[in-house]
Amino acid sequence: MVQRVSSRQMPGLRMATTIDASKLTVTKTTTPKQKEANADLLFGRTFTDHMLEIDWDTENGWHDPKIVPYGDFQMSPASSALHYSVQCFEGMKAYKTADGDIRMFRPDCNMERLNNSMERLALPAFDGEAFMDCLKTLVKLDESWIPQEEGYSLYIRPTAIGNSPYLGLTAPNHAKLFAILSPVGPYYPNGFKPVRLLADTKNVRAWPGGVGNAKLGGNYGPTIKPGNDAMKDGFDQVLWLFGEDHQVCEIGAMNVFFIMKTKDGKTEVVTPPLSRGDILPGVTRRSILALAEESGDFVVSERAITMNEVHTAWKEGRLMEAFGAGTAAIISPINLIHYKGNDIEFPTGDDIGPVAKSFWRQLCDIQYGIKEHEWSIKI
Amino acid sequence: MVQRVSSRQMPGLRMATTIDASKLTVTKTTTPKQKEANADLLFGRTFTDHMLEIDWDTENGWHDPKIVPYGDFQMSPASSALHYSVQCFEGMKAYKTADGDIRMFRPDCNMERLNNSMERLALPAFDGEAFMDCLKTLVKLDESWIPQEEGYSLYIRPTAIGNSPYLGLTAPNHAKLFAILSPVGPYYPNGFKPVRLLADTKNVRAWPGGVGNAKLGGNYGPTIKPGNDAMKDGFDQVLWLFGEDHQVCEIGAMNVFFIMKTKDGKTEVVTPPLSRGDILPGVTRRSILALAEESGDFVVSERAITMNEVHTAWKEGRLMEAFGAGTAAIISPINLIHYKGNDIEFPTGDDIGPVAKSFWRQLCDIQYGIKEHEWSIKI
Repeated sequence: MVQRVSSRQMPGLRMATTIDASKLTVTKTTTPKQKEANADLLFGRTFTDHMLEIDWDTENGWHDPKIVPYGDFQMSPASSALHYSVQCFEGMKAYKTADGDIRMFRPDCNMERLNNSMERLALPAFDGEAFMDCLKTLVKLDESWIPQEEGYSLYIRPTAIGNSPYLGLTAPNHAKLFAILSPVGPYYPNGFKPVRLLADTKNVRAWPGGVGNAKLGGNYGPTIKPGNDAMKDGFDQVLWLFGEDHQVCEIGAMNVFFIMKTKDGKTEVVTPPLSRGDILPGVTRRSILALAEESGDFVVSERAITMNEVHTAWKEGRLMEAFGAGTAAIISPINLIHYKGNDIEFPTGDDIGPVAKSFWRQLCDIQYGIKEHEWSIKI
Repeated sequence: MVQRVSSRQMPGLRMATTIDASKLTVTKTTTPKQKEANADLLFGRTFTDHMLEIDWDTENGWHDPKIVPYGDFQMSPASSALHYSVQCFEGMKAYKTADGDIRMFRPDCNMERLNNSMERLALPAFDGEAFMDCLKTLVKLDESWIPQEEGYSLYIRPTAIGNSPYLGLTAPNHAKLFAILSPVGPYYPNGFKPVRLLADTKNVRAWPGGVGNAKLGGNYGPTIKPGNDAMKDGFDQVLWLFGEDHQVCEIGAMNVFFIMKTKDGKTEVVTPPLSRGDILPGVTRRSILALAEESGDFVVSERAITMNEVHTAWKEGRLMEAFGAGTAAIISPINLIHYKGNDIEFPTGDDIGPVAKSFWRQLCDIQYGIKEHEWSIKI
């Protein structure tokens, strides 16, 4: 059991002091690490030489930002980050273009979402532009870590934690905003490898009134075991469902899209809606929706879709493609959904479907600066 | 977005190596802390001189347990405890009896629940008895920290975290089981102070198919903001509801009980059932249920109870008492529930009700060794 401490802790929580990027200090490492060959990179295993840290407390607000050599934190064993999951994060990428520029993709969306996640955890508000200024300095400092081959990038993990050195279920009066960088390879180095999904009728990822629409650590840990169980049964990921009518939610840690022929022969792009509050508002998700709208080629629907509807569309030959969408994979094609003992197999088989591939190509072209677009910013 | 790493990480995850309490090493502090006066103790603010740590990794299983001076951890900024909320905990207490003995209350229940929580997070299994042996050594070492006044005790916080130093949503291959100790005062130093609850029709704590029945950090962080919002409106805690019919779940971080007259004049003890999977299986909860059964005085019901039923029973004069139950407060009487603009006020007013008080007295007598009982063990 846990106990709230007095409400006297509350005032001043979201004080308006802001991050001052002009006060950023940089302490360079004296022992730069050896870089691995691109081919040896595994997601999230290798980190660059430096990281960004910005502390906060109720008395002083945001401290001066600092870039320091990548290394362990000193952390109280009573920290609210370790006991009450006062933690949230973002996933972003920096890309090295053919011209040698460094680009980032819609970082304002990540800053907005991180602020929303932090608010949901009673963590302080922060100035996204100031944080981005510090982050850009970090990325430029570790620029030599950005792999240059096509499909490679620098994964950026901004994270916020409550860091009060005491127990008690109350808004933290110490917090830390930090970012670490990890060079990563293409999700599918040898061509697209579509995933086989288990539609999970037992475990539920999120629900209305819960926190599935915020990028909180607490949404992720509980997905590891169901994911492992699915892998033991020969599947790659879990397809999360919700409600007695088994509405489709997300796959693994990605948003999900279906491409279907409507009964009157149009092509519909369907993804579950944000309105229920149980879907993560993905940056890749909203970008695909915008590209789909803009093309004029599709009926674009953010709407509830049940497994029954998916199954019926499949039986009627109207189910064309499905894919996951997220920062890590960009687009992850699906070739099978196992639901209540039945396999729903997609006609795209072992390849990516043409609609998914078109979105993937457009996103990559924007991210790598091949196509100039307001979503991609040079840093 | 996050990305699963290869399933090659999976094998060996729950290897059967066990904690070897005989290998426990003790490193005593050379700088013992000054103890505070009992009257100055605030929950979870003061920690004793030592803590227990047991590391685990996939290659070596459980390392030798160690008691070390209380102090910060060195923690990777990529730790799965900080990003994916791979963390769970327990709350226990050690009591100093009038005879000078140290007692603990049903520690086997906590060990069982911690193992369940860890399994849900793909953390390794551990031997509860061996961990308890180490914990007893720690409590005895810091015995002088157990406050001796009635109502005082030593709060024990066993915690397990995944501690892999990399990103990626996979079962951790490094973990840490640790325990810290905090001397605490009585929850109500000046007599019982009943709490005013806001029945929250917006935020939902847990869901069938979710993890509300495990003591995971991720269940707690998201409750801070709704709790603060309720406090701003003049309430002490949130009463969590579930479903369109607003079934009662828990209050704050405690289980909830209602004492009601049935229509045929019996006295019913009601608490929501574990069967839906969204209620924490509290040790105080199960102890109260057992005491209630044993007394023969009550109809004892683990069953769904809706806010409508509570409201109707109140209007009909059949609602006698309600209280929260948990390790920290033992019993926390409720004097008001605000639901959809209406106040349901309990006839017990500013005091604890007679049924709640009887359970409280019985539990205290057992915990402090005043009444000999198998639940209370001398260490």
